[in-house]
Amino acid sequence: MTGIRELAQRLNLSIGTVSRALNGKPDVNEQTRQRVLEAADAMGYVPNQAGRSLRKGATGVIGFMMQTGAQITGEGDVFFMSVFDGVQTVLARHQLDLVALLCSSEEDPDAYMQRVVARGFADALIISATKREDHRIDYLASRNIPFIALGRSQTDAGHPWLDLDFEGMAETGVARLVSKGHRRIGIFAPLDDTNLGYVLIETYRKALEQRGLTFDPDLIFRAHPNERGGHDIAHAIAAMPATKRPTGFILTNELMTLGFYNGLYEVGLTPGEKFAVISRDSPQSHFLVPKLTSFRLSLRDLGIALAEALLATMPAYAAHYPLGVVRKIVPMELVEGDSDMPAATD
Amino acid sequence: MTGIRELAQRLNLSIGTVSRALNGKPDVNEQTRQRVLEAADAMGYVPNQAGRSLRKGATGVIGFMMQTGAQITGEGDVFFMSVFDGVQTVLARHQLDLVALLCSSEEDPDAYMQRVVARGFADALIISATKREDHRIDYLASRNIPFIALGRSQTDAGHPWLDLDFEGMAETGVARLVSKGHRRIGIFAPLDDTNLGYVLIETYRKALEQRGLTFDPDLIFRAHPNERGGHDIAHAIAAMPATKRPTGFILTNELMTLGFYNGLYEVGLTPGEKFAVISRDSPQSHFLVPKLTSFRLSLRDLGIALAEALLATMPAYAAHYPLGVVRKIVPMELVEGDSDMPAATD
Repeated sequence: MTGIRELAQRLNLSIGTVSRALNGKPDVNEQTRQRVLEAADAMGYVPNQAGRSLRKGATGVIGFMMQTGAQITGEGDVFFMSVFDGVQTVLARHQLDLVALLCSSEEDPDAYMQRVVARGFADALIISATKREDHRIDYLASRNIPFIALGRSQTDAGHPWLDLDFEGMAETGVARLVSKGHRRIGIFAPLDDTNLGYVLIETYRKALEQRGLTFDPDLIFRAHPNERGGHDIAHAIAAMPATKRPTGFILTNELMTLGFYNGLYEVGLTPGEKFAVISRDSPQSHFLVPKLTSFRLSLRDLGIALAEALLATMPAYAAHYPLGVVRKIVPMELVEGDSDMPAATD
Repeated sequence: MTGIRELAQRLNLSIGTVSRALNGKPDVNEQTRQRVLEAADAMGYVPNQAGRSLRKGATGVIGFMMQTGAQITGEGDVFFMSVFDGVQTVLARHQLDLVALLCSSEEDPDAYMQRVVARGFADALIISATKREDHRIDYLASRNIPFIALGRSQTDAGHPWLDLDFEGMAETGVARLVSKGHRRIGIFAPLDDTNLGYVLIETYRKALEQRGLTFDPDLIFRAHPNERGGHDIAHAIAAMPATKRPTGFILTNELMTLGFYNGLYEVGLTPGEKFAVISRDSPQSHFLVPKLTSFRLSLRDLGIALAEALLATMPAYAAHYPLGVVRKIVPMELVEGDSDMPAATD
């Protein structure tokens, strides 16, 4: 592999001159720069990025930390890939590359984050799956590493974030089902301390109480956020005494919908006929029968907003994106389907 | 932050021994390695990766290059995330991290690969979506970068690869449908020059001819490998004159199945009743009615095999994986469902 030393020797130039030419510094004359670039190309010169990273902190890479593992992405992903597509659209304008930093569910996210930072191969980070208290936020802030969180947290380092409108989903879901005569409304919540679980339950409780309905902890269904989790919730509902069961349900995870629908069919609680369902939209949900009443947003636009808000915090790009510190809840659109029929009158 | 120096002092070992223990070198006894790993864990040791990279060309990172974009992953991914899970299982044994290198479909994969190599942040690469002729293979081989391909190619650099058994899917699919009386059998193929398309069509043609059936190019259906593509193929089939239409179909992409099923329902070609379907298994396909006859493999096991075959080519890890240059077609299991009924007798 040809390094800068070989290149300088061949050209009979100093390493400093070659380096300045390769890095587009203004103090190299154009003819020399041209000679250097041509020789670099001909000799197959590969810049030693690790060295550049140590000196300048500029890797040209943005890392997106996501959790993987059998329970999280083991049944596929219908969220991140579309968000990535939007992020890449923005990064491509600046010749920046996106890499997905895959933190296994068997690993501590905080330790993983520290290792990512120590490896030093990204200029900035996007973190997701934020916890109620999230040490990654304090850690990144203390290291002065530009980052944005996809998801809120009680840990506040004055950092930028974007989040889906979980309040809106819980509030609209309850309002809609109550207006259709439902009195026992179930809701999904994650098993762990992901922040969105707290937001969902708080809003759900308030929305019920505002309408004179009693909050019943038995109507919160915790499961893994995947098809199997959706399927299991349907069976858990069927196992409840008929008078205790919910008659309608709010799902906020798009991976669970198909399993939930099929579980409901299996136990005879036909969606849209005997059981009301509102969920998140996904490409797969478009094929469901009956048509799903769902919350929709453009994941690509979410990715674009995320990348622009991140670049707004990076000195080299902030001038292009004078957005300040973005902290924004992204609204969802309710798309009416046939899955949330009125409650049966007793 | 605890560095290797502090760790060595605390353990009263030389920096070299600690380094070899941390890096999984074979010349450290197991008891010492265990002591070092425990102390590293207890003391919060963080390797200075940028420094390591400069000295040894070892970043501790394995890159998995995958293509993203609206037509490829725009509707989600039910493949790579499960493969990643298996890869991470192996890498975790050696304190290696997996990053996904996301090449946008709007970008030239060869140029992207060169940039990845120039950035120098991975010790080794896994490439996927191999083309009939794939310049990435020659490029990586010429740079002496350890890599493995998920997918075959006519470009042969003596490199290791794993691939799914597309021959088996085409051959078994044709044999099964012919034995059930089908004479016009459709097959999916990708729109671009992905190698698997050539393998599929060649095997499909041979399997038909061996059974005295004529190969008809109109029965090859090219589409984007996603739900929409599956849906569109169903409608394209319905638009053909009834005597020209296929009566059965072989799909080899798991993302397309749901859209294909629903498209068939829409045009009145009920799967398993009026139209025979064989496809790839996915978590989503388990919920289909009627039950899908499908080709199954463990994606996690595929990821494990991929990572072990890659490490077998890396000097620092080869001793753990004496596998040589792995070149292997991974067989699929046929799971019988109810979606491929016998052909109607005229």
